[in-house]
Amino acid sequence: MTAAQCRVKNRGMTYCLGIAVDRGLVFVSDSRTNAGADQIGTYSKMHRFCLEGERSFALLAAGNLATTQSVVAQIEQDIESRASESLMVAETLDDAADYVGRVCVHKAEQARDRVQRGSGDFVPEASFILGGEIRGGRADIAHIYPEGNFVHASATMPFLQIGEVKYGKPILDRIIHPGTSIGDALKAAVVSMDSTMRSNATVGPPVECCIYRAGSLSQGRHLVLDEHHEYLLTVRRLWAESLRQAFDSLPDVPGAEESVPAVTRLR
Amino acid sequence: MTAAQCRVKNRGMTYCLGIAVDRGLVFVSDSRTNAGADQIGTYSKMHRFCLEGERSFALLAAGNLATTQSVVAQIEQDIESRASESLMVAETLDDAADYVGRVCVHKAEQARDRVQRGSGDFVPEASFILGGEIRGGRADIAHIYPEGNFVHASATMPFLQIGEVKYGKPILDRIIHPGTSIGDALKAAVVSMDSTMRSNATVGPPVECCIYRAGSLSQGRHLVLDEHHEYLLTVRRLWAESLRQAFDSLPDVPGAEESVPAVTRLR
Repeated sequence: MTAAQCRVKNRGMTYCLGIAVDRGLVFVSDSRTNAGADQIGTYSKMHRFCLEGERSFALLAAGNLATTQSVVAQIEQDIESRASESLMVAETLDDAADYVGRVCVHKAEQARDRVQRGSGDFVPEASFILGGEIRGGRADIAHIYPEGNFVHASATMPFLQIGEVKYGKPILDRIIHPGTSIGDALKAAVVSMDSTMRSNATVGPPVECCIYRAGSLSQGRHLVLDEHHEYLLTVRRLWAESLRQAFDSLPDVPGAEESVPAVTRLR
Repeated sequence: MTAAQCRVKNRGMTYCLGIAVDRGLVFVSDSRTNAGADQIGTYSKMHRFCLEGERSFALLAAGNLATTQSVVAQIEQDIESRASESLMVAETLDDAADYVGRVCVHKAEQARDRVQRGSGDFVPEASFILGGEIRGGRADIAHIYPEGNFVHASATMPFLQIGEVKYGKPILDRIIHPGTSIGDALKAAVVSMDSTMRSNATVGPPVECCIYRAGSLSQGRHLVLDEHHEYLLTVRRLWAESLRQAFDSLPDVPGAEESVPAVTRLR
């Protein structure tokens, strides 16, 4: 795959996951960036912002790396400069998501304006998961689209994914619900990430994890699992063994009977 | 999602899988077609062609339904009319795949020529998995792309998927290798299909299965699992229970330690 193709497809070149359960929030992100098989890098895709006792945010980024970095830089600058809009002054998580969405659209437009028109393979878009809590509100997560609009998690969809989302979705579909403990949500997120890394080379370690307990208004607890981390290796081995055992315990498919569609007889 | 969007994305609106192990071939396909949430249909995506003792083929189709139907109709007509090129006269599986690829490209071009230029959301492309055996050759499968070219399975990639391929890939990555028995390959294919149906509403039953034993030059054995088929219900229940047990048996993620990246202090 050429770098140009990868720029087109680069929203798939990452996997970030946010989970909102009753007891709090879980965030997990991979660290691989890719603009072609010959341009692989490692960058953190998890950015955290906290004022203890007041507000705490985690921001997960997918998409064009230049855009996501410029968005994060703008967010930090707006905090530094005490701008009229920032994660510091947003009154609700919706306000914060709307602000991030507008920064994202603005940075992507700036990038597009710099390239000649018709450069169809240049995709400066980025998407984000913003989660956290502001005092007086409640812990929540939002998926911010490249167009700047966003959706919340819900009781029926308690997790949000960006990037290469499909490989790791089945386990989340089965495990995650609002009553899931934070520990189980984190464990399911790591399994989901491991399955994704196993099936897609463009998603890779280190795996960053952050858990936030609802109401704590703290920076939460952060963990980095590099590819040699004992827990990641253990989960990978045990999960593979368990899946194999689960598979072996399934009954064989019953004897096949002939049925529609009829075979076209060659003659 | 509008029908137009779905026509653009319709290659995802199906899941077909072919597996080539040492002992033979396994084919599994779903039956849901979709051109928007308001246009759901059920069509077989598995087409078989056989001359006992001479040659046997299974053809799995994904993509634009009108195109796939016209391709299959052309293939059947070429057999009927004893055309100079057909699945009946192809000397090798490569010849057969090349023939199907050319029919596919031709039908897609015909469809595109019928619509006004610039109807960007009209995607008449289709892709196929063709598998089988011709006497004197060996059992194999090929993925035929919308451009008409094709790739074979291999010892390192013994399965080929078309359509909505990602949800069901992790289990195949873990289970399928050339030495896998036909029974296990079929079982893994059904689990892969079930996981896909569970995570994506555009892939649906009945599930068609076909197994072909290498060297048999027979039509193979065919099985249709509708949504109420006892085996499908059993696999779904047991697999969910086993995954839950496997998940519960994993150790919890160790206590999180603070580490990079540093949290941006809001102030």
